[in-house]
Amino acid sequence: MMSQVASPSISALLDARLAGHSLPQGLYTRPDVFEADLDVLFRKHWIYVGLECDVPEPGDASVVELGTSSIILLRDDDGQIRVVHNVCRHRGSRLLPPGPSVVSKLVCPYHQWTYELNGELVHAPHMGIDFDKSCRNLKPVTFRSIGGLIYVCLSDNPPDDIDRLVEVMERRLAPYDIRNTKIAFQTEVIEQGNWKLTLENNRECYHCSSNHPELCVSFIDLDFGYDPQSLSEEDRADAERHQALYAERTERWEAEGYPSAAVEQLVDCATNFRTQRLIIAGNGESQTPDATAASAKLLGSMTRKDLGDTHLWGHNCWNHFMGDHAVTSLVIPLSADRTLVRTKWLVHKDAVEGVDYDLEKLTNVWIATTDQDSELVARSHAGITDPAYEPGCYSAFTEGHLDKFSTWYIERMRAHGY
Amino acid sequence: MMSQVASPSISALLDARLAGHSLPQGLYTRPDVFEADLDVLFRKHWIYVGLECDVPEPGDASVVELGTSSIILLRDDDGQIRVVHNVCRHRGSRLLPPGPSVVSKLVCPYHQWTYELNGELVHAPHMGIDFDKSCRNLKPVTFRSIGGLIYVCLSDNPPDDIDRLVEVMERRLAPYDIRNTKIAFQTEVIEQGNWKLTLENNRECYHCSSNHPELCVSFIDLDFGYDPQSLSEEDRADAERHQALYAERTERWEAEGYPSAAVEQLVDCATNFRTQRLIIAGNGESQTPDATAASAKLLGSMTRKDLGDTHLWGHNCWNHFMGDHAVTSLVIPLSADRTLVRTKWLVHKDAVEGVDYDLEKLTNVWIATTDQDSELVARSHAGITDPAYEPGCYSAFTEGHLDKFSTWYIERMRAHGY
Amino acid sequence: MMSQVASPSISALLDARLAGHSLPQGLYTRPDVFEADLDVLFRKHWIYVGLECDVPEPGDASVVELGTSSIILLRDDDGQIRVVHNVCRHRGSRLLPPGPSVVSKLVCPYHQWTYELNGELVHAPHMGIDFDKSCRNLKPVTFRSIGGLIYVCLSDNPPDDIDRLVEVMERRLAPYDIRNTKIAFQTEVIEQGNWKLTLENNRECYHCSSNHPELCVSFIDLDFGYDPQSLSEEDRADAERHQALYAERTERWEAEGYPSAAVEQLVDCATNFRTQRLIIAGNGESQTPDATAASAKLLGSMTRKDLGDTHLWGHNCWNHFMGDHAVTSLVIPLSADRTLVRTKWLVHKDAVEGVDYDLEKLTNVWIATTDQDSELVARSHAGITDPAYEPGCYSAFTEGHLDKFSTWYIERMRAHGY
Repeated sequence: MMSQVASPSISALLDARLAGHSLPQGLYTRPDVFEADLDVLFRKHWIYVGLECDVPEPGDASVVELGTSSIILLRDDDGQIRVVHNVCRHRGSRLLPPGPSVVSKLVCPYHQWTYELNGELVHAPHMGIDFDKSCRNLKPVTFRSIGGLIYVCLSDNPPDDIDRLVEVMERRLAPYDIRNTKIAFQTEVIEQGNWKLTLENNRECYHCSSNHPELCVSFIDLDFGYDPQSLSEEDRADAERHQALYAERTERWEAEGYPSAAVEQLVDCATNFRTQRLIIAGNGESQTPDATAASAKLLGSMTRKDLGDTHLWGHNCWNHFMGDHAVTSLVIPLSADRTLVRTKWLVHKDAVEGVDYDLEKLTNVWIATTDQDSELVARSHAGITDPAYEPGCYSAFTEGHLDKFSTWYIERMRAHGY
Repeated sequence: MMSQVASPSISALLDARLAGHSLPQGLYTRPDVFEADLDVLFRKHWIYVGLECDVPEPGDASVVELGTSSIILLRDDDGQIRVVHNVCRHRGSRLLPPGPSVVSKLVCPYHQWTYELNGELVHAPHMGIDFDKSCRNLKPVTFRSIGGLIYVCLSDNPPDDIDRLVEVMERRLAPYDIRNTKIAFQTEVIEQGNWKLTLENNRECYHCSSNHPELCVSFIDLDFGYDPQSLSEEDRADAERHQALYAERTERWEAEGYPSAAVEQLVDCATNFRTQRLIIAGNGESQTPDATAASAKLLGSMTRKDLGDTHLWGHNCWNHFMGDHAVTSLVIPLSADRTLVRTKWLVHKDAVEGVDYDLEKLTNVWIATTDQDSELVARSHAGITDPAYEPGCYSAFTEGHLDKFSTWYIERMRAHGY
Repeated sequence: MMSQVASPSISALLDARLAGHSLPQGLYTRPDVFEADLDVLFRKHWIYVGLECDVPEPGDASVVELGTSSIILLRDDDGQIRVVHNVCRHRGSRLLPPGPSVVSKLVCPYHQWTYELNGELVHAPHMGIDFDKSCRNLKPVTFRSIGGLIYVCLSDNPPDDIDRLVEVMERRLAPYDIRNTKIAFQTEVIEQGNWKLTLENNRECYHCSSNHPELCVSFIDLDFGYDPQSLSEEDRADAERHQALYAERTERWEAEGYPSAAVEQLVDCATNFRTQRLIIAGNGESQTPDATAASAKLLGSMTRKDLGDTHLWGHNCWNHFMGDHAVTSLVIPLSADRTLVRTKWLVHKDAVEGVDYDLEKLTNVWIATTDQDSELVARSHAGITDPAYEPGCYSAFTEGHLDKFSTWYIERMRAHGY
């Protein structure tokens, strides 16, 4: 289109970004930027795609789609996780449909080419005696399981600073034993906005008090920044009390052997993450309507409900690990203006619905929060497409993480030649 | 796409237009032309977007979307009309949803930035003490209310020949007092065709007799031209009688103080319009199934039902002002092949449905006509996309206004650099 | 989009094709390739669009849409077939809607321009006395009726090697008298894949045994190739017996005056086709659930049910002519990833449903087969869009026709300047 021909290069858009401000319009809205984002941020970086508990038993498979890529997570007969591309080496047919399957071998439905669960081609009828099967195995996908969370990198040069994420999170996640959870519930919401707006929305709680009544029972927006002068005297006193409490609690948790202090790798890095153990408000146990635990059977080796919420951000996920359950959301861009958010609620693998946990109580807060966020992202994206939009300045108090995210985004695009 | 790469420039398409003929295919069908049309004809010219009676009371707001632009028409506490861009100056969120709202202030739902109804930013929490709110007011939109019809121009250089439209129409509309009407009914039809075909279709009545049985009860297609030799002897005699009647009636109306003669500014201008007081056929009162008034309570200061139909064309609207009601349609292009037509039926603000007017009688003719036109535009657009299409010649008798419209279109595109 | 700007030219994609392998990804998936395909393979080559029996009586018309083209097949008052573009010569409106109509003249619904069934403009009201109607006749479409099958070419230079198809098929089709059939049933399936995948899928029966249980009752997949070493000893013996039987049967049929041997023009040609008389398995009569005839009234002059299945391939069709009925499918590309397959079941024009034939029995096999193929094509297309796809090698035994088809495709694109 003429308007695109006349429009600036992606590189010029990156140049145009002002520090401390939201991104120039085109970086949120242009289809060519979307394709570049997919290539750079979702193919050449580590992304979170699922969990070991998506495929608990040998022969369990789970297909995850990302753009035009489709990958199969599966558990081999030896109990190992495997990840392969969902593309038959014959004429390219998909082997499995999206979502879960149970398989003994991977048999292409088109012409019955048959692969072992490790991807080895073992049967290719009518191809003739000279056909060399050994060079037609399914293509493997590079992956890491970090405490049960599966990250993949679709490029041949996966960034090596994933190591810090592994080191930090393996230890933090150990007590929750996420490998031995089950998925109690899953939702998919398609947000009508760019994936970076989905992420920006998640990295501030400036919007929480007026938009997330359910979440605010257990979640403390002040943890993500505030301008003391914007608060009433009473609220300011509360905020100060909370800060003191937070310092004291962190110290105590750390002393008890639970890593709690914030660790972040947000700029000047390939692999973007942040983790911190947060205090849960109110009854202090879990992100539920009354902040008490939803599941009587605690996760992993946990015996306590007062260990707060270990949050983990990535550039395509956010997660909350609590004593009784975990909530994990992953983000898959669908187009410049559509983004899939897939959320899973995890409980102990032996927890029984209706006995150990009540599903409504378990899922209430984040179902509501996710729907509210979806509305906010749509409204935000719509406004940003307007010719009258110009980048606005982030609050230095409440939106510092957005500034870092936008800065990281620019850095990564430049690192890949834009 | 290859076919677009190889296709002629917009400028070459404009050059290719033959006088007296419909436009070259690409001007109706190409996405790049559509984007150029939106920019030139809908952002750099005055367009009709709504009515004062869309926002009758202080605090009433009405959001109109045009391409990716969204504007808020509202009535301030002092009774004045305001028009601002529907984009928060923080991170760009939409302030209000499309359609009507009632507000006391404009509060962004995202982070509670709060604006006065005149657009002034009065509250921006957590932005810090040094934040200068004064440069973050909502962006105003240039507008004119012409007898209660709101025209906006989204560019910084609004064409000044709007003045002639104002001068002509303020006087013609005065007796109808459109500012003191109410919207009795509204429809939206999405036509499957280019906006220029929607306009062309509206500017000829060559298609009326075989397509609009309801309209032809009160509307006289001959007013928009005919070839005498195409008529039967009897029809020709009728046509001649009608012309004589029209001349006599116009003279009488003018003498009574009602401007009636045709005034038009259709080529060699930026602001395209035409108005004329037309005779209503049959019972002569109104565009209803039997051509009698649909509302017993006449508009404004009117005491007579025999003052015909003051029609008004713009490049994105058509309107009919009659003694008892008015019908006003505005056109918003959605894509190269989809066009929104929003039609409103206006009655006196104090008229009561079921007492003063019957809604079915009021809306019958133009609901039917609009649906019929939608079908014609879709069929026309489909044929024009065919490789076998070549521009056809307009009838010098019945399609002279289309030739002028196409000529004006070419002029305006050239005036803006194509 | 950036990714397209950076992507190779169509010519480079054609160069990249490896002999014996499926095509490079972009040739199946890119919108610019789709547009080029439509232009080259569907506008500049002969394509199959319908049947004489679509318009059995004078005044019958059938509109076929192909991309943005729309053509009218009709039967004139003298019984002759005519084919004209469905575009009014006035302002381009469609004259008739898609599908069947009955007309006495072709009257444009917009302004009543009226054409004879041979396309001659006979009435154009209000165009003035000097208007020359003679240069505004409907544009004719070049066509051939081959034994009742209508082929058109939308370009001015139709390939002349259609002559071989005519010569071969007129004789083969004569006994079936397709001109005197009626359409007993018709389906339209939109496959979620590129049209070349639809064709490739049709040109091999490597996928039949595991995907088409209904078809395999009467259809012999071995006829389209096999690797003897892929078969069990028993199956190999069966295959050898079948080959001997096929040779014997072909010789007998030919001796009886029924052309049966394979004739093909698949590479080094413009007009791509193949025909052969195939043995029907099982009861040997027809492609029905039990391989017996579905219609008691045989086609044309046929008196025997043991004359097998005369199959005919084109680059946009496949057909099976049997003693009691025929099944004919045509392919219309809708976009790079969507393809329409329109299938018609033909019986003797005097056959009566419920008396001479049972509709369920008649249609069962190919309704099931078409649905199964649609699923396979969708799965194939999805996998081919994956960045992990790379062209795979065709089986030399079972996919030789795909290799020829891909080779022909490359040849034709090059012949037209790519």
